[in-house]
Amino acid sequence: MTQETLTLRIEPEETEVATHPGDGVLEVLSETGILMTTPCGHQAMCGKCRILVTEGVSDPSDAERQILSEEELNEGVRLACQTHVIGDAVVTVPSESRAAEMRVLVGGARRDAPFDPAIVKKSVTWTEQSLSGALSQFDHLSRLLDIRADLTAGLSVLTRLPALFADAEGKELTAVIRNKQLISVEEGNSEFDCFGIACDIGTTTIVGTLLDLKSGNAVSTASAVNGQTHYGHDVISRIHYVLENPDGLQVLQSALMNTVNDIIGQLLSPSKVDPQDVYELTVVGNATMTHIFMGVDPRSLGFLPYIPVMNHAVEADAASLGLKVNPIAEVHVLPGIAGYVGADTVGALLAAGMDNPGDGIQMLADVGTNCEIVLHYEGRLMACSTPAGPAFEGARIQHGMYAGPGAIEKVRLDVNGDCECKVIGRVEPRGICGSGLVDIGAELLRAGLMDETGRLLAPDEVDTGLSPLLRGRIREDEAGIHFVLAENSSGEAIVLTQRDIRELQLAKAAIRSGVEALLDAVDLKPADLTEFYLAGGFGSYLDSRQAIRLGMIPEIAEDRIHFIGNAAVVGARLALVSTDMRRRAEKLARSAEHLQIAETAEFQMRFADAMLFDL
Amino acid sequence: MTQETLTLRIEPEETEVATHPGDGVLEVLSETGILMTTPCGHQAMCGKCRILVTEGVSDPSDAERQILSEEELNEGVRLACQTHVIGDAVVTVPSESRAAEMRVLVGGARRDAPFDPAIVKKSVTWTEQSLSGALSQFDHLSRLLDIRADLTAGLSVLTRLPALFADAEGKELTAVIRNKQLISVEEGNSEFDCFGIACDIGTTTIVGTLLDLKSGNAVSTASAVNGQTHYGHDVISRIHYVLENPDGLQVLQSALMNTVNDIIGQLLSPSKVDPQDVYELTVVGNATMTHIFMGVDPRSLGFLPYIPVMNHAVEADAASLGLKVNPIAEVHVLPGIAGYVGADTVGALLAAGMDNPGDGIQMLADVGTNCEIVLHYEGRLMACSTPAGPAFEGARIQHGMYAGPGAIEKVRLDVNGDCECKVIGRVEPRGICGSGLVDIGAELLRAGLMDETGRLLAPDEVDTGLSPLLRGRIREDEAGIHFVLAENSSGEAIVLTQRDIRELQLAKAAIRSGVEALLDAVDLKPADLTEFYLAGGFGSYLDSRQAIRLGMIPEIAEDRIHFIGNAAVVGARLALVSTDMRRRAEKLARSAEHLQIAETAEFQMRFADAMLFDL
Repeated sequence: MTQETLTLRIEPEETEVATHPGDGVLEVLSETGILMTTPCGHQAMCGKCRILVTEGVSDPSDAERQILSEEELNEGVRLACQTHVIGDAVVTVPSESRAAEMRVLVGGARRDAPFDPAIVKKSVTWTEQSLSGALSQFDHLSRLLDIRADLTAGLSVLTRLPALFADAEGKELTAVIRNKQLISVEEGNSEFDCFGIACDIGTTTIVGTLLDLKSGNAVSTASAVNGQTHYGHDVISRIHYVLENPDGLQVLQSALMNTVNDIIGQLLSPSKVDPQDVYELTVVGNATMTHIFMGVDPRSLGFLPYIPVMNHAVEADAASLGLKVNPIAEVHVLPGIAGYVGADTVGALLAAGMDNPGDGIQMLADVGTNCEIVLHYEGRLMACSTPAGPAFEGARIQHGMYAGPGAIEKVRLDVNGDCECKVIGRVEPRGICGSGLVDIGAELLRAGLMDETGRLLAPDEVDTGLSPLLRGRIREDEAGIHFVLAENSSGEAIVLTQRDIRELQLAKAAIRSGVEALLDAVDLKPADLTEFYLAGGFGSYLDSRQAIRLGMIPEIAEDRIHFIGNAAVVGARLALVSTDMRRRAEKLARSAEHLQIAETAEFQMRFADAMLFDL
Repeated sequence: MTQETLTLRIEPEETEVATHPGDGVLEVLSETGILMTTPCGHQAMCGKCRILVTEGVSDPSDAERQILSEEELNEGVRLACQTHVIGDAVVTVPSESRAAEMRVLVGGARRDAPFDPAIVKKSVTWTEQSLSGALSQFDHLSRLLDIRADLTAGLSVLTRLPALFADAEGKELTAVIRNKQLISVEEGNSEFDCFGIACDIGTTTIVGTLLDLKSGNAVSTASAVNGQTHYGHDVISRIHYVLENPDGLQVLQSALMNTVNDIIGQLLSPSKVDPQDVYELTVVGNATMTHIFMGVDPRSLGFLPYIPVMNHAVEADAASLGLKVNPIAEVHVLPGIAGYVGADTVGALLAAGMDNPGDGIQMLADVGTNCEIVLHYEGRLMACSTPAGPAFEGARIQHGMYAGPGAIEKVRLDVNGDCECKVIGRVEPRGICGSGLVDIGAELLRAGLMDETGRLLAPDEVDTGLSPLLRGRIREDEAGIHFVLAENSSGEAIVLTQRDIRELQLAKAAIRSGVEALLDAVDLKPADLTEFYLAGGFGSYLDSRQAIRLGMIPEIAEDRIHFIGNAAVVGARLALVSTDMRRRAEKLARSAEHLQIAETAEFQMRFADAMLFDL
């Protein structure tokens, strides 16, 4: 006996799927990837899984009749959990009935976040009211929008309503709502033109991601060197610039905004997204960067006790900051923990799920120009920071570059063969990114081309058994010894210099000594850690064994080390698609303790030790 | 045996009172009029009645030791309910320990409102932090302010903090906080320079009251004719002006702001209050006025179904509206009920306590250029409005004027004697205000000088027994008959003309027919009313018997009639000193039903009947 095959058309997806008589609509939707909100567990109690369907389905159940009004039933409103297919049917699934979980990719791991962005766009067809029971125009709009929460509106949108509603009978309008506040009404149906940008403002590198706020999907990513690097490579030099120049803050803020606006342009142009359709930005960064971004003088971060003006999340309007997006867009800057453990760390902690860490002992190290380290132990979150320098972002490294096309991200030395490099993108090598730097450092050690003090050996100092190819890569000029990783087709060499290695040593020492100091503070050993998250813009292929070999991190079982990439910007993305994540960020930032470790004499000793390599 | 007399000095009042050993501090304070917050009923459980005292009092009780920290006890923090006088003592009572009830005078009646203004100013002495456990500057300020709620701050104040905190060690700073948000920090201690303005924007008259937001006391009151009257006497003509002129809305808004700014000047100058010390305004008015005030096009109020753009409370910043107060000041416009039952009615309802009306059947009529009537019956609030015209505010009456100095507010005619007028202030008569108009109308009827149609009788038509003095006041010229109420020292006569009486008839008919229609709608009679509140800017001495005689209101037992004056502005005052009152206003406005009574044919008939007088 063959079963009759029916067609279920799903709107607004315009998808058609094959079904059989008696199939549950909820199950069919689930199989096609449409997850419904079903807090009651399909018991027809919550009434959340509403769909619209008029033909080809079973009659309403008693449970449905109790939850849905006569009017709703007449309009074809049904509960998906109670409805079965009996013929060809067309089902419309309203967005409010859809499960709002989304998964965000963080490195190899994933974390769930409820999809509840601050910005919601919803279209309606405007109809005039009759005399009896007439509401205010605004309340009438709220009713048409069918938003149960009490909507409010500020003057900027209220003043525009009368002209919008004149002659609007039968026309579509789209409401833009932020946190229960109507912030704009647009003509026509622009419901799906709703975007946001998540931004990580690093001292050296700025990264932005454009997100579709209707789906939560990432549209594009772009990065650029912070325009402030002209005024100094680290936060202290930026703060000095502010101290020494009367208009220093404005100059630095404007340099930063130019870079952010460049990134916005890079994000929008290829995907043809209109700047007017960007309604919100979330920003992470270290405290000096977020202060300058908002035009707040960062000088208190330059002196003991290194305190920020504010640590809490701040909202500001994009227009007043000079950002080239919709003027009603708002910027949400995530909270920070301390002067040198900023919103970028909070973003990384969110991305790693350390807002809800469970029973284990977790540590996260976010490596940028500064390195921030956070330990979760027995319900406490303890944070410290150490100055790593910009080596892993490519700065102050002769051929350093950000992890983009042309960057050498992986290096292997074969003592019997040659040097092999993996380059990002199908392009010629242009430089070395963070993961490449870790690799080449570890490989030079392993191959015996560098001693424990970090000195590159001269060709005549190395093992005589070394392959001639490798030996040939060791060159010497007036600046000293350097190692040639690759040459491009024009014959230009990508090299690692002795000076580069000194930068690498500073960076790895900062991380290693911070990690150890924080563990020591609560009498733990690296082996006690159940998870170690290493975050930063190194590139995609950071090898944890190489990081251990280099001495960047202490010896931790490999399966406990998770390289989670630029987790700060992932945190900004989470905060962009989920106001729940913003609340978690605020709570996490408030509860974390800050340990002023880097100021102690003990730390200086530890740091000096960590400069050396283990052979 | 004589008891030893001790002295208790109370700070910051600088008051000294005599006490005896063993007297409870809480009781002494209460007797001197200082009421403390004691939600636990003196059980030493809530810890709310904190005072500062170091000498001359009993040792801390066990209960105190449980609630207060060692540090607090060392600083002299005590609970007033547990502390007894044993010697001469100096007690400081912080404002947060004081009971926050205030009484607001409404006509003869009073209503209680919790004193919780949206604006709070608090001074602190700034101290730098040490290295360990340093907070952000903002969190440090919050801690110094000892505000338990999580304070937030926007960019406009955050950007100013670094300069304020530089070299501030040991100096006083004053925080300005609105709804848990820090909106400004001022140098020095300006805690007591904190004012607000409550404003009733009538079609004809605008009234403002300056309030001290530290004490809740009224400082001064001022009124002026709405600068828009140049563009028409009623709301319909203002709406037409907006419709017919491209810049009509801007012209009317600017005329209104000029008047409001004049009133602000009148309020501030005599009391030497700095405009910078005005941090908040509350505004009531009919919907057309509040729309124009906020720059929202009121045209939808000019046509059926007469709907406003918005009914809910709106907040706007004073600077963008062009108000001459502190630029950070905010304007809170109270919510309205319907297009012709606006925020002024909601204010009057608050003032009359109809947000919590109890079991009885109450009615409130607020008489301005429009008359709004609200009935409370069995938990329902029903509202309607009728067009009364501006007669009671003095407009369109030949010698009409607002109830200010020189206004005749009371009139008595003695058929055997003469006409006696009571004039506001010790000045010569300049005109007739609303209550005087009601009086002279009622008296002309009683004395037989006017017939039931409102026609003034000629000298030869009146009773021959009338005193020659009164008869002599009936004059006739080319415009018709008029009655001379008074003459000033320059020989100028204050008269009531036949045309004035037609205006009075329209006004009284509007009120009477509205009251009756609303009662009829729920099958009630005037005698069923337990309270009848009559509100409006008539003047201080409106006589309810005269209002009944005139037929303005139906016959209601006198002790149930309460003349509550300009209750709309009292509502604005309540909302200024109490955010709780704002919540009540919003709830009340949302729950009230609006009856579109004035549009029915039945109402037109009723109105025509009500034009006549009862003899």
